[in-house]
Amino acid sequence: MLDAVGIKEAIIYRQLIDVLMADNQFADIVLYQGNVINVLTREMYQADIAIKDKYILMVGDAGKLIGPDTLVVDVRGKFLSPGFMDSHMHFESSMLTITEFSRLSIPSGTTTLVADPHEIGNALGPIGMKAMAEEASVVPNHVHLVVPALTPDCPGLETAGYDITSKDMKEILNYPNVIGIGELQGFSNAKHVYRNTPEVITDLVASTTYAKSIGKIVDGNAPDLFGQELAAHIIATGGKCSCHETTTKEECVEKLRQGVYVFMREGSTQRNMAECIRAVTEEGLDSRRCILATDDMVAEDLEKLGHMNEIVKRTIAEGVDPIEAIQMVTINPATYFGLEDRGVLAPGKLADIAVISDLKEMTVEGVFLEGKLVASQGELLIDLPPYIYPEEVKHSVKCKKIQESAIAIPASGKEALVRCIELIPDQNLSGSLEVTVKTQQGNAISDVAQDALQMVCVERYGRNGGIGKAFVKGFGLKHGAFAESVAHDTHNIMAVGTNSKDITMAINRVIEMEGGIAVVKNGRVIEEMRLPVGGLITDELTGPEVSQKIVDLERVTKVELGCSVHAPFMHLSFLALSTSPSWKLTDQGLIDVNNFKILPPVIE
Amino acid sequence: MLDAVGIKEAIIYRQLIDVLMADNQFADIVLYQGNVINVLTREMYQADIAIKDKYILMVGDAGKLIGPDTLVVDVRGKFLSPGFMDSHMHFESSMLTITEFSRLSIPSGTTTLVADPHEIGNALGPIGMKAMAEEASVVPNHVHLVVPALTPDCPGLETAGYDITSKDMKEILNYPNVIGIGELQGFSNAKHVYRNTPEVITDLVASTTYAKSIGKIVDGNAPDLFGQELAAHIIATGGKCSCHETTTKEECVEKLRQGVYVFMREGSTQRNMAECIRAVTEEGLDSRRCILATDDMVAEDLEKLGHMNEIVKRTIAEGVDPIEAIQMVTINPATYFGLEDRGVLAPGKLADIAVISDLKEMTVEGVFLEGKLVASQGELLIDLPPYIYPEEVKHSVKCKKIQESAIAIPASGKEALVRCIELIPDQNLSGSLEVTVKTQQGNAISDVAQDALQMVCVERYGRNGGIGKAFVKGFGLKHGAFAESVAHDTHNIMAVGTNSKDITMAINRVIEMEGGIAVVKNGRVIEEMRLPVGGLITDELTGPEVSQKIVDLERVTKVELGCSVHAPFMHLSFLALSTSPSWKLTDQGLIDVNNFKILPPVIE
Repeated sequence: MLDAVGIKEAIIYRQLIDVLMADNQFADIVLYQGNVINVLTREMYQADIAIKDKYILMVGDAGKLIGPDTLVVDVRGKFLSPGFMDSHMHFESSMLTITEFSRLSIPSGTTTLVADPHEIGNALGPIGMKAMAEEASVVPNHVHLVVPALTPDCPGLETAGYDITSKDMKEILNYPNVIGIGELQGFSNAKHVYRNTPEVITDLVASTTYAKSIGKIVDGNAPDLFGQELAAHIIATGGKCSCHETTTKEECVEKLRQGVYVFMREGSTQRNMAECIRAVTEEGLDSRRCILATDDMVAEDLEKLGHMNEIVKRTIAEGVDPIEAIQMVTINPATYFGLEDRGVLAPGKLADIAVISDLKEMTVEGVFLEGKLVASQGELLIDLPPYIYPEEVKHSVKCKKIQESAIAIPASGKEALVRCIELIPDQNLSGSLEVTVKTQQGNAISDVAQDALQMVCVERYGRNGGIGKAFVKGFGLKHGAFAESVAHDTHNIMAVGTNSKDITMAINRVIEMEGGIAVVKNGRVIEEMRLPVGGLITDELTGPEVSQKIVDLERVTKVELGCSVHAPFMHLSFLALSTSPSWKLTDQGLIDVNNFKILPPVIE
Repeated sequence: MLDAVGIKEAIIYRQLIDVLMADNQFADIVLYQGNVINVLTREMYQADIAIKDKYILMVGDAGKLIGPDTLVVDVRGKFLSPGFMDSHMHFESSMLTITEFSRLSIPSGTTTLVADPHEIGNALGPIGMKAMAEEASVVPNHVHLVVPALTPDCPGLETAGYDITSKDMKEILNYPNVIGIGELQGFSNAKHVYRNTPEVITDLVASTTYAKSIGKIVDGNAPDLFGQELAAHIIATGGKCSCHETTTKEECVEKLRQGVYVFMREGSTQRNMAECIRAVTEEGLDSRRCILATDDMVAEDLEKLGHMNEIVKRTIAEGVDPIEAIQMVTINPATYFGLEDRGVLAPGKLADIAVISDLKEMTVEGVFLEGKLVASQGELLIDLPPYIYPEEVKHSVKCKKIQESAIAIPASGKEALVRCIELIPDQNLSGSLEVTVKTQQGNAISDVAQDALQMVCVERYGRNGGIGKAFVKGFGLKHGAFAESVAHDTHNIMAVGTNSKDITMAINRVIEMEGGIAVVKNGRVIEEMRLPVGGLITDELTGPEVSQKIVDLERVTKVELGCSVHAPFMHLSFLALSTSPSWKLTDQGLIDVNNFKILPPVIE
């Protein structure tokens, strides 16, 4: 009846009962008299937590479970919380392997990560996700994947390295640690997808129905959807839906009312929690479907600020009861994902525990993972060897180097009225402007004074050689250019700069490196980073090294190029996100997201 | 990829999206401007509910979804709630088929029943449960089963018709509509099971681990357990646990703290809600794991009082916010059981809706089930033919008729000090008394003046011929006797009476009928009811007929026999429940539940 895993589990459970019921058996560890944060009842009280093997034996008076070999840890005055969960994140955004991300996030109390390998899925398809699933299954923390049902997000408007459809579901949903389908971006722009590519919806529904039939979850992605469109999106997910793209209180209220689990996002660039949380603090809505997630975090923030502990701290600062805020990273997501073995401190649950010394500051002093003390005072205590990815997920940049002429934007006359995307700091959303720029030798060119800079997106998979072109306002560059093989979600090569020559050089350097970031000034590469895994991730640097490298890249971009926006590489990468209004740039051109069409860069 | 069911579901979902997104498609039904009870956010506000096929299309302003053929139902001033769920109940307690129970419960707004076929499982084993699973799959409401992992509850202390163990799990967990393992009574008396029959625990853990591995839930049953024993019980269930046997506020607080879903019981005899709910009303605990359930309901109560609407009304009367109380019969149980397709009013969920005219009285005026109006003003609107059980689940009484001498309680002297079970009205628990009774021809006999009556339990499956004997106080009979083939949980024949002759006759009449209830006075059967299905259920009478028959049976028991306790047949049947302290009577004898042993009826 039981397979080998089941037999092992049954034996362990039987042993736990023996420890609890026999007179001469004892716990491995007793956390003595901590302030237990009970996310089940929203209480806090002093109690012991007894641990045996990977599991919590009991929470209460564990005096009788202390034997001669029991490790008793005095946690009086400390606060004990279930380990934290980040419910929606992309490792690719940190450019770190799962291992390096974990090295930085475990000491902050994060014991479970639910990652969407959407970026590597776009770049490499199933083989990329399989490689991440394999890494996910060897790290000491709990890493689950939710895989994309569709790449690219907007077929016809952009080119991915691989086109994922329902045909791939049976394979990819059964990779190790895969618990469901990730963000359903393909139907986030409901009206236009319905009008323009209704067959995409049919395919998505086939995928989500299959996922449900094998007990997997489906995440939604419903930015700015209300009423009938929101209802249609929810139904496309199979009726159980999350959204991590909610940006206003009104939207949050509407989604909670419709049964959506709202993942209030608070990452390195997009910060929507403070606005969303007003549905709870001002409207008093039941918060059981409120969840905190980062979506995208850079290594530096992880290292300097922390991870979910920092997000919880900010949520508390918005006026939420501390235990209610902690519910949003523990019991609430565990319930949503059906991860019944964690998220609460109770008998039989995994002993994933964050020991907190200061509840207001959310200072995590120690972390237990499956009953083992794995971090203390911010330091990882376990050996975590770097993870090297197989060759088959490298060399994803297959296009040839480009000529400067390939990125030109032809325009007649001395000046040209051009379409200019407006960067909105800390948002995925962008604005749409019309700007008059000068021309040179028959091409519209960057206008530094107006901060209207040339932006280019080069298809990098060798599939069609598309090059999209437009202008952008918001980077404030005075010199040079930078390019990167990270560009959500298809991850072609995105570049911005003050002149065509530097832009071309930056792009070609990224192509030479087979993926990465390059900063160019006056015809010279002044800083760079290789991203060999899918053009997105490095397995050559540790977390702190990536963090330092990005600091260096951002510093030269600011100091040498005059860039005025923080996190310029992340902001540039999101200007390719064709599902998020209003104008974006893909390898196929300037995308009018709301109208689902491609616009020429120059207004005739 | 998808099987036939999946393809059908995907097509329906795709059609729902069409209705929402296309300009020329419309809802089947729009409930216009009701007061929507939103159990997701704990709000109430005016909105429409649009329905297509079996599903809710949207909740909000559905004006655009009203077409020429849409049925618009004006529900202004009414309250719209998700259909109610009874999360733990036994059809056998009502003596009704699932069909007849549904006939009475649907008009009260109950759309989902989770039943434990524990009684028929004890009487008949897998064939009995399979027969119920088959009926469950044909009724119009949603009926799910949770099947026992162990019969009898206390091996060695009682005799069931079939011994269920882990060997049966693979078969019975895969019957239609089975969603898990039912109440884990086998480990409810943790300490004594551990000391006396530890092999039972090993077997239960094998069963629960298997259930978990195939995505099924496991209900607990943890009366009066705290601390280490409660933890051991929770772990035996696999770590996710419910309990419907919680009787005090303190116990309720402890269980909620330990992650147990507390099914606050409010049935025909056991009423624990008012006490349990104090954990919420007085202690302010998060109520997301609080659930209301009936456990055992008689037909008369269903008919006269209602079902879950009545229980919600009583819960509100205890000071609980009405929406919070409704959460306990909708979203809370749906979340516990993983029945994600219901329990809330939101897009894509089943259109199971109770239309309530008076929220304080919980008067249910109309009921929609999968988008169809199935009941109005308390009347069922759909055709529901009686269900006839197959012959293989009848004729379960296999023992031969007994002689009066077989039930004698030999005692020397003129008087005898005997053990007397104390009936506690409206509780499963019983007391333990010592009483001096007269003897006659060498046997201790009933003492009507003291209300110490002879009670007998006859093994009815032809397995060992066991006859248990004891005394009982609490029925107050002045004449005659009554007997029944309903006796929790092994359902041998239980009888009580003022004299051996009438007791014997009542037992033999039950044997003749092949199951049922018989009331005897002065050597004559004065009232009876046949229970042909497993000796527990009748498929010969409708719900109202059973209700009337029980009224008749109780009337003669009161008027002719002088019985002083209400619901005497249900009370008698629970005096056999060997898992519930302190003294009980099985076919093996008088059970000292707390000490897990059999005591002689006479104290030497």
